[in-house]
Amino acid sequence: MRDPRYDVLFEPIQLGPVTAKNRFYQVPHCSGMGWLRPKMLAAMRGTKAEGGWGVVCTEYCSIHPNSDDGAYPYARLWDDDDIRDNALMTDAVHEHGALAGAELWIGGNSVANLSTRLPPMGLTSLPNTADDNYHPVQSRRVDKKDIRNILTWQADAAKRAVQAGFDIVYVYATHGYLLAEFLNPITNQRTDEYGGSLENRVRIVRELLDVTRDAVGDKAALACRFSVDLASNEGYDAFGLLADIPDLWDVTVPDYGIEMGASRFVKEAELQDSVAKAKSLTTKPVVAVGRFTSPDTMARVVRDGTQDMIGAARPSIADPFLPKKIEEGRIEDIRECIGCNVCYAHDTLGVPIRCTQNPTMGEEHRKGWHPEALSRTTKSEKVLIVGAGPAGLEAAQILGKRGYEVMLAEATRDLGGRVTRESRLPGLSEWARVRDWRIGQIEKLTNVEVFRESRLGVDDILAVGADHVFVATGADWTVDGLGRRRDTAIGVGNGAKILSADHILAGDETPSGHVVLFDDDHYYMGSVLALALRSRGNTVTLVTPAGRAGAWGKYSNEEYTVTRKLIESDVRIVTNRSLERVDAGSATISCIFTGRETTIEADWVLPLTRREPDDTLFHSLRKVCDDGRDGAPKSLKRIGDCEAPGMIASAVYSGYKAAVELD
Amino acid sequence: MRDPRYDVLFEPIQLGPVTAKNRFYQVPHCSGMGWLRPKMLAAMRGTKAEGGWGVVCTEYCSIHPNSDDGAYPYARLWDDDDIRDNALMTDAVHEHGALAGAELWIGGNSVANLSTRLPPMGLTSLPNTADDNYHPVQSRRVDKKDIRNILTWQADAAKRAVQAGFDIVYVYATHGYLLAEFLNPITNQRTDEYGGSLENRVRIVRELLDVTRDAVGDKAALACRFSVDLASNEGYDAFGLLADIPDLWDVTVPDYGIEMGASRFVKEAELQDSVAKAKSLTTKPVVAVGRFTSPDTMARVVRDGTQDMIGAARPSIADPFLPKKIEEGRIEDIRECIGCNVCYAHDTLGVPIRCTQNPTMGEEHRKGWHPEALSRTTKSEKVLIVGAGPAGLEAAQILGKRGYEVMLAEATRDLGGRVTRESRLPGLSEWARVRDWRIGQIEKLTNVEVFRESRLGVDDILAVGADHVFVATGADWTVDGLGRRRDTAIGVGNGAKILSADHILAGDETPSGHVVLFDDDHYYMGSVLALALRSRGNTVTLVTPAGRAGAWGKYSNEEYTVTRKLIESDVRIVTNRSLERVDAGSATISCIFTGRETTIEADWVLPLTRREPDDTLFHSLRKVCDDGRDGAPKSLKRIGDCEAPGMIASAVYSGYKAAVELD
Repeated sequence: MRDPRYDVLFEPIQLGPVTAKNRFYQVPHCSGMGWLRPKMLAAMRGTKAEGGWGVVCTEYCSIHPNSDDGAYPYARLWDDDDIRDNALMTDAVHEHGALAGAELWIGGNSVANLSTRLPPMGLTSLPNTADDNYHPVQSRRVDKKDIRNILTWQADAAKRAVQAGFDIVYVYATHGYLLAEFLNPITNQRTDEYGGSLENRVRIVRELLDVTRDAVGDKAALACRFSVDLASNEGYDAFGLLADIPDLWDVTVPDYGIEMGASRFVKEAELQDSVAKAKSLTTKPVVAVGRFTSPDTMARVVRDGTQDMIGAARPSIADPFLPKKIEEGRIEDIRECIGCNVCYAHDTLGVPIRCTQNPTMGEEHRKGWHPEALSRTTKSEKVLIVGAGPAGLEAAQILGKRGYEVMLAEATRDLGGRVTRESRLPGLSEWARVRDWRIGQIEKLTNVEVFRESRLGVDDILAVGADHVFVATGADWTVDGLGRRRDTAIGVGNGAKILSADHILAGDETPSGHVVLFDDDHYYMGSVLALALRSRGNTVTLVTPAGRAGAWGKYSNEEYTVTRKLIESDVRIVTNRSLERVDAGSATISCIFTGRETTIEADWVLPLTRREPDDTLFHSLRKVCDDGRDGAPKSLKRIGDCEAPGMIASAVYSGYKAAVELD
Repeated sequence: MRDPRYDVLFEPIQLGPVTAKNRFYQVPHCSGMGWLRPKMLAAMRGTKAEGGWGVVCTEYCSIHPNSDDGAYPYARLWDDDDIRDNALMTDAVHEHGALAGAELWIGGNSVANLSTRLPPMGLTSLPNTADDNYHPVQSRRVDKKDIRNILTWQADAAKRAVQAGFDIVYVYATHGYLLAEFLNPITNQRTDEYGGSLENRVRIVRELLDVTRDAVGDKAALACRFSVDLASNEGYDAFGLLADIPDLWDVTVPDYGIEMGASRFVKEAELQDSVAKAKSLTTKPVVAVGRFTSPDTMARVVRDGTQDMIGAARPSIADPFLPKKIEEGRIEDIRECIGCNVCYAHDTLGVPIRCTQNPTMGEEHRKGWHPEALSRTTKSEKVLIVGAGPAGLEAAQILGKRGYEVMLAEATRDLGGRVTRESRLPGLSEWARVRDWRIGQIEKLTNVEVFRESRLGVDDILAVGADHVFVATGADWTVDGLGRRRDTAIGVGNGAKILSADHILAGDETPSGHVVLFDDDHYYMGSVLALALRSRGNTVTLVTPAGRAGAWGKYSNEEYTVTRKLIESDVRIVTNRSLERVDAGSATISCIFTGRETTIEADWVLPLTRREPDDTLFHSLRKVCDDGRDGAPKSLKRIGDCEAPGMIASAVYSGYKAAVELD
């Protein structure tokens, strides 16, 4: 049962008129569901409440059509239809004794109102700043009448929030939206009572807190999300002016890159000094995030007075049952967030969030998947899984929990496959959690046997006589240059020296000299390999057909940090170029727009363009099954990268899906 | 009434078992509505049928969850719910005697299945190629069983299409999707009966045509969308093998940049030679697009045997009533597409399409707007509109049609405002249609008076005694550098020479020398101005904080063409840099990732970052209204760029909205 060290996390806490049963607080976070997928959203949030979170909030919730972040599916409370949709979520949350929170949201010039087509609001008329999307939209300057409207809309939305069953209602005064524009002396150039002095710039937040309080009465707690920054006193001074007005402070920092930084660059509890200083200025409870996955860290920050509640977005996505597992003393069962940010990336792409560690995320309603519950098999069947990478490990632990007799055969000495190889590279150490958690689960299962250094051929497999075989043999990086940009192989001249990504991933010694890395992958691998090569003393030029290095990092909120790191590590970046051919000592690259070719010096060229599924065994087995040979399994399936190389999240998902769908 | 020259466009035509009443064919085009907004979609398509299109198709329509282009809202026919949703559209189309078409669609490695999470299908396992989005997804290699499944899914979807009321059902064999991969000898490396010879590569299309024919029987025509390319015989040979199988060919070219090229680069009927050659190979009717807006061109291509039907996407968006206007002899009322591609851009952004020329596009259901019908006012009221740019012209013609007494006052000699100025720049001449159509409409209205060279002050306006005043005074480009990237002004040293975009737009003489254009606008203006300067003999460096020049052109399908043109015109492009300061003879720019500064030579610097609303008059009038002065109007409104600078489409929309919402 629960370790008394963690008792502090389970003390109830009063938030104005309501009481949270414990200190676990799922802060408002995007889901790619919002107004568009209310049932999916309710099931997802409800699962977290079931998992023990004392408070579960919805995502940023628009109060009016002129706060429209389309095509991202934010939440909204514009009218009575929206009350009904949001009530699905609050009902699901209440069912498990948790409180539901609504972060009422007012847009600004970082939203473009692409769907509602209304001119966005701003303090001056500035071009839309959403995520380097460069929408040809400028905001319109709000006047006093607009401010009065905003106060009315907030009050109306707050009333709707109460009707929809929310227990906590926010004023959302950060993240670059309109209220942040008011607070900022650079963007707020007003000369009336809403601009100039700090007191004036804070005025609208104070008025919004007042109208929200009046609207919710004693039906809901009043919360305020607010940013503070140790590098500037301004934020704390503003905070100080409002310190005792709301019932709860949701404190964060202005830099998204810190608040939700990828684990490559930002570690657990990174915000604690900023938060502690705010906490010292108020008598009201404070919640703050910090990608907390360690109960010890959580207990420490509550005990030492940094904050009162443990805010979480990503850790609650990776493990909706995190609080319950601490409560039940099952610390080792916590599925820790690896900080890869594929959750955020998918919201940014306008689709439901997914998670590397938790393949059930987003499938609670659509497929009825549950992060903890599994149906047990009624059959006494044997399943052989070939390959212990992320797909194989996931399938093994799920099938084991479902009651199958599982044999997991791994060709090498190490479990984890690509996760093990990748997690050794700069910044990716936390990714090993994908492997370690699964190994931990498997070790508790007596019906799962793991065989290392067991490279199986077709005859070996037939000899096992398994009822079902899953082939999870992964994929290898190719060196032919075929990929997104090229549909034919690169030219290779005499004496050309080509280096494979797998060579570095295997930990083999790398040659010296200048490496030209052709990154047509565009996610993390290019920058990680470039940095790995730099740390080994190579000079590196990263050539990409994109306009920026690691361009998909735009979605996972890593693009700027990654590129800064590359430049600071003296990696040369050449953009908008493709690779044409490799010769001794040189690479020929071409402009993607004109085809014009240039030659650059290169001792080695590393083409990073695609992976080839390692599916020879699968196809041989398929033939054996089709031929009906003795010992052939009843079913055969390829999973993970062996079927379709993708993110680690896709491999885990594939393993889970195959394992829960068996039968 | 109808000019007999155009009679050929109104001859019915047999398409297998069904008959189209005329030759106007709205080809399948994206709408940003699809499965997500079925009522909006039905109203939009129904309006086109009402406007006389003989055939109205839905957008690409997925046959199975593993063809998922999320977050773009494609159409789909996965199950019975989808039948119901699609029937809304076919009912709306049938109501006006038109046929409804469904383009059944099979994905491939250009879709990432981000929403359904299924591995996309491919002929080899290749990284996702969707629009330089670089999703970390590779396709899985389809095998024979997959091919059998695809045939079954197509047949099932075709049956659902018939149940949903579609009269034409497609096999969609182009645009880079899976069938295009089969046809292409480079991407199709199969060694079985589906690869190798042309006959083999065409096999799956033939089989799909066969199963679709069986599924639809005599209930619907069988259509095939197919690409041919004059530069290659392959496509025609493939076409020839299938020439007489479908009831209708929807012929296009493989290059999207031609098929739906912006008017900057591609003119009307651009595909005609490619199409004519295909037409000569088949006995079946052929439809093809070509951004046809001229009835003469349309009649010519039908008469000369290039094609049988006039395919249209954009012209039907700009004017849903195009056929009816030809039929009624109202050629001058046709609202011609300007080829700006903001329709396509908004679909790409995952929101409903909009249109520069037709502000009602996408609002047929949501707001009940109609491209032709307007409610007449019952009041005898006078409206003064100040400024005859796109917003002012639109408001004037709408208010005129609604029966108001309208006075349109323009400060300069020219009507059209920014449209007039911009349409004089390289490639933008067709944009003048925005102005010309509206002037043409206004000239027919006796209740609209236009006053040129009439710069009005507050007192002038009060003297008019209008009941309502619309201020449409536009916006000016600023030179302070404030914008998306910078929230403070650039530094300006002694002797710094700064050039305004408005200077060039005004047609004023430009100074000689090297111009550094800082493009933090990211849409067309930067490249257009750069090319204008080049044509006047300046050397030009375009500096952009984005990774590519004119980065928003990604959405409007111009990015590659624009950049190619810039490079070929010897415009130097410097990416991922911001502008810090301007001194005599130089500009200091900085890396957006690290802040590192470099200085480049510059005789002149042109900061293109934002526009400042020209709203002084509006605010003065507002005060007059608040003070209740004599002659003050009952209502005062700012519209267009004067309210919030944006696209021309937004200005027109703003003028329309204010005009239809008056009362």
